[in-house]
Amino acid sequence: MVVKVYGPNYASPKRVIVCLIEKGIEFETVPVDLFKGENKSPEYLELQPFGELPVIQDGDYILFESRAIIRYYAEKYKSQGTDLLGKTIEEKGLVDQWLEVEAHKYQPPLYDMVVQILFFPKMGIPKDENKMKENEEKLSKVLDVYEERLSKSKYLAGDFFSLADLSYLPFTQYLVGPMEKGYMIRNRKHVSAWWDDISSRPSWQKVLSFNFNP
Amino acid sequence: MVVKVYGPNYASPKRVIVCLIEKGIEFETVPVDLFKGENKSPEYLELQPFGELPVIQDGDYILFESRAIIRYYAEKYKSQGTDLLGKTIEEKGLVDQWLEVEAHKYQPPLYDMVVQILFFPKMGIPKDENKMKENEEKLSKVLDVYEERLSKSKYLAGDFFSLADLSYLPFTQYLVGPMEKGYMIRNRKHVSAWWDDISSRPSWQKVLSFNFNP
Repeated sequence: MVVKVYGPNYASPKRVIVCLIEKGIEFETVPVDLFKGENKSPEYLELQPFGELPVIQDGDYILFESRAIIRYYAEKYKSQGTDLLGKTIEEKGLVDQWLEVEAHKYQPPLYDMVVQILFFPKMGIPKDENKMKENEEKLSKVLDVYEERLSKSKYLAGDFFSLADLSYLPFTQYLVGPMEKGYMIRNRKHVSAWWDDISSRPSWQKVLSFNFNP
Repeated sequence: MVVKVYGPNYASPKRVIVCLIEKGIEFETVPVDLFKGENKSPEYLELQPFGELPVIQDGDYILFESRAIIRYYAEKYKSQGTDLLGKTIEEKGLVDQWLEVEAHKYQPPLYDMVVQILFFPKMGIPKDENKMKENEEKLSKVLDVYEERLSKSKYLAGDFFSLADLSYLPFTQYLVGPMEKGYMIRNRKHVSAWWDDISSRPSWQKVLSFNFNP
């Protein structure tokens, strides 16, 4: 059964796609255009009642929330492709911990910056410079903790690549790319080496090479 | 080995404590006073580099982020106490999905309301009425999705109590109790029945009966 991933042009669905590639799971993508409001259609809301991305369909099984989806596939196909959960239950606990940190500490300020820098101009909305500054400061403090952590282990959850690292790829790519804030990564030696490592993985390079636009 | 839980007076650590009780795991609590800045002490930052609650110590194993901790114990002691993960990997996927919804859709507006209603007065800060209204609207929309969901299954992830329900207990208790916004639950028939069910569990009643203050 080929897994259908909705909304491949956006960042959170790419978190799912890079995971499926690491696990060697076949998938196809279904475009969803947020600017046309396709995520608010009755058909889409049947799949994802909040009208958000991503959602997957795997036969009769429907699942949303990108971090729930990557946990599901990492566990279901534990021994296929890259093991993304660590070897022991204690390692898996640390994977979950740093995945939660990504979701609660890293993503919220970065997401707001993405919206302000990349989407507001398209919508004719001016940036809120105070909010931008506040978010950049929050993100800097989180990156300082990562710098310390990554001085002690190669990846966030330990000396193994895991969901806890993979989950950073889509939004950090915005940061170093179109947002032109790569200095936030490059100013930190260990974070910088970690980013070079995870972003050069063939799985992520493959995601970057796709043109999901119809 | 008795599990040490830091900061039992606050809501997120209670998410961990109610889980430990459901699983029949022995624990002890270590008070942390946020108003005295005890969470910013060098000793505490060694355990939790962001200075946040909760963190647990289980022998040499240290884990933070409440939802990572409850996943760890639910999995480590899968067959002890209440099974909180469902029977199949597909059920577990749905547990993760609704746990993510709690973390990303329910908790953020509610947390801001908690801070404004319960903590701002202690700190002499006036409420931001626009923000309050905006948050209550957001929370209402999320509760509408739960109402629909709970009209079809007894609990959020299916017909079994799980981490996805347990995780709502501490902050929803604020909502129906000291925040005096119980109408948001009571106005919705299925959400109301679900709340009565989960909040009357002996585990949660036990948490409410504790006086963790030193």
